[in-house]
Amino acid sequence: MRVAVDAMGGDNAPVVEVEGAVAAVREFGIPVTLVGDTDRLRQELAKHDCKGLDIVVHHASEVVGMHDSPSDAVRKKKDSSIRVAFELVKAGKAAAVVSAGNSGATMAAGMFVLKRLPGIDRPAIAQVFPTLRDRTLVLDVGGNVDCKPLNLVQFAIMGEVYARSVMGIANPRIGLLSNGEEESKGNDLTRETTAILKNISFDYAGYVEGRDIFYGLVDVVVCDGFVGNVVLKLSEGLAEAVGKMLKDEFKQSFIARLGYLLARKAFNNFKKKVDYAEYGGAPLLGINGVGMISHGGSNAKAIKNAIRFAHEFVEKGVNERMAEKLQANYPITVQQQREPLQDQAAG
Amino acid sequence: MRVAVDAMGGDNAPVVEVEGAVAAVREFGIPVTLVGDTDRLRQELAKHDCKGLDIVVHHASEVVGMHDSPSDAVRKKKDSSIRVAFELVKAGKAAAVVSAGNSGATMAAGMFVLKRLPGIDRPAIAQVFPTLRDRTLVLDVGGNVDCKPLNLVQFAIMGEVYARSVMGIANPRIGLLSNGEEESKGNDLTRETTAILKNISFDYAGYVEGRDIFYGLVDVVVCDGFVGNVVLKLSEGLAEAVGKMLKDEFKQSFIARLGYLLARKAFNNFKKKVDYAEYGGAPLLGINGVGMISHGGSNAKAIKNAIRFAHEFVEKGVNERMAEKLQANYPITVQQQREPLQDQAAG
Repeated sequence: MRVAVDAMGGDNAPVVEVEGAVAAVREFGIPVTLVGDTDRLRQELAKHDCKGLDIVVHHASEVVGMHDSPSDAVRKKKDSSIRVAFELVKAGKAAAVVSAGNSGATMAAGMFVLKRLPGIDRPAIAQVFPTLRDRTLVLDVGGNVDCKPLNLVQFAIMGEVYARSVMGIANPRIGLLSNGEEESKGNDLTRETTAILKNISFDYAGYVEGRDIFYGLVDVVVCDGFVGNVVLKLSEGLAEAVGKMLKDEFKQSFIARLGYLLARKAFNNFKKKVDYAEYGGAPLLGINGVGMISHGGSNAKAIKNAIRFAHEFVEKGVNERMAEKLQANYPITVQQQREPLQDQAAG
Repeated sequence: MRVAVDAMGGDNAPVVEVEGAVAAVREFGIPVTLVGDTDRLRQELAKHDCKGLDIVVHHASEVVGMHDSPSDAVRKKKDSSIRVAFELVKAGKAAAVVSAGNSGATMAAGMFVLKRLPGIDRPAIAQVFPTLRDRTLVLDVGGNVDCKPLNLVQFAIMGEVYARSVMGIANPRIGLLSNGEEESKGNDLTRETTAILKNISFDYAGYVEGRDIFYGLVDVVVCDGFVGNVVLKLSEGLAEAVGKMLKDEFKQSFIARLGYLLARKAFNNFKKKVDYAEYGGAPLLGINGVGMISHGGSNAKAIKNAIRFAHEFVEKGVNERMAEKLQANYPITVQQQREPLQDQAAG
């Protein structure tokens, strides 16, 4: 079971992609295909001892930049590393894709080449957050900015299956992100969504608030991609700001600096706990295949872990389980919002 | 110029309200009326040396609880401390209200008793956030969950005037919260809003992201109340979680504990920088009067500072300036969304 790595996508490509891939093959025995400029990749691979490692290089002549639009990237750059990586999956030459490139383009390429999972209207990007208790999966943090209730219901089902299968949570609790826990809170979207979620066969906890994400009150937090993106970037920004503010304070006196040095291990343990590299990437849920989106600034460790989780995603049959769960909750998950049905009703 | 304090609203009422009021009168010379159960308040006041301080008590027999619905609270509890406080403003016996109680009820009571500022469709609650550069005002963090573009435009104008008048920022930069900086990002609401904001006579910076709030990229961040509430509570939750995680790490070894003790001053300076009590409350913008909403868990210092900022809000003539700015940008700020106009166009 081979993982195709878009080796040209990230901010530090292809250096970290190659290093991470070599580490994944060596540590986990997962075969990897590096997709990108063959010359550049061979040159990078030469820096590593690859003897006996199942690593192959597959040529792609183009690269989707961080500022390319997702749809243009798919339509105009037909030989881009991200699109070619998904083509390898389509052709049965790989089982999953890992990319630290343009996440919108990765989502678009995945959908374009592999199509959607049956029963899913819009795929979502899910992100694992560290919490006081353990970890919480938040979705969508991707590009679904204007969602209908049914989109969020499908996100909830996909998130539940991923949490159960890959994160190893026995009976995941699902929460819907809102502006208060009471049923009287929420907006039009959450009120319609919560009414449907109550009828799905899983452990639905109702509304949760922003603070509950880091307290780990539930295992899966569902929201639209606009709100999810704000949550993701606010968290990154706040964590960085807190770090910088503390650092500035430590610089103010010799005693404080000494204290910092003594407590450094505690700081490093803390940093490790909140380090995205440990979680290895954000699964792209809802395409008919497996994609793992890593942070643009990923290091080799993040790429290595993304390859591991992509492998588990396939091994655990997550997509098959999602399709089953959608089927088991049919017709709740499809009947409410489909326009053709509404048109029929109106006509 | 007297400030009416809802002395029964907060989690620690009336202890911190009385203590904060006494401190505000003593330190800033601002006359205060404490509104609530007279017996209880006199009993609490007796703990302080109030000689020569201009503090009066005004009776209100009811209290709006944190779980009361805002509209019920106003309609059913006509003698509640929050409603009576606003009635004092209406009667000209006070110039501003401070409350650490149910924020939805405070907003509802303010609107019900004092009505809206001319040109404002929906009042908003604004919150000051500490940033790496200075401070950023975010609004709405209150109850406007499903907004129209015009609501956000009015929030932007109110925020700009508040930042200029009370926060002392000479030429505030305004940003619209979105899921990316590029114009191609955003949802239906932000796309329509940004088109209008470009024509307002202020320094509009376009879309900003979640991370930009703590970097202090702009002085005022505009969003709907659903997103703003998630931003507010996520920030509180993350800051608390980071504190707890660090504390746990420090407990792991003697050396780390020693380091923490030496660096304690740095930690305390940092805490002070992010302490909401320093900012004293969230201004309620858009009612025809002045209201300052303090955190439910406020301490006396937070109440004291809220009284100070409420006083400045009145002194600086913020409402008059907002009305002027709305007028100066007429008809952009009203013509786009008013249903009667749309109806006329359709008819």
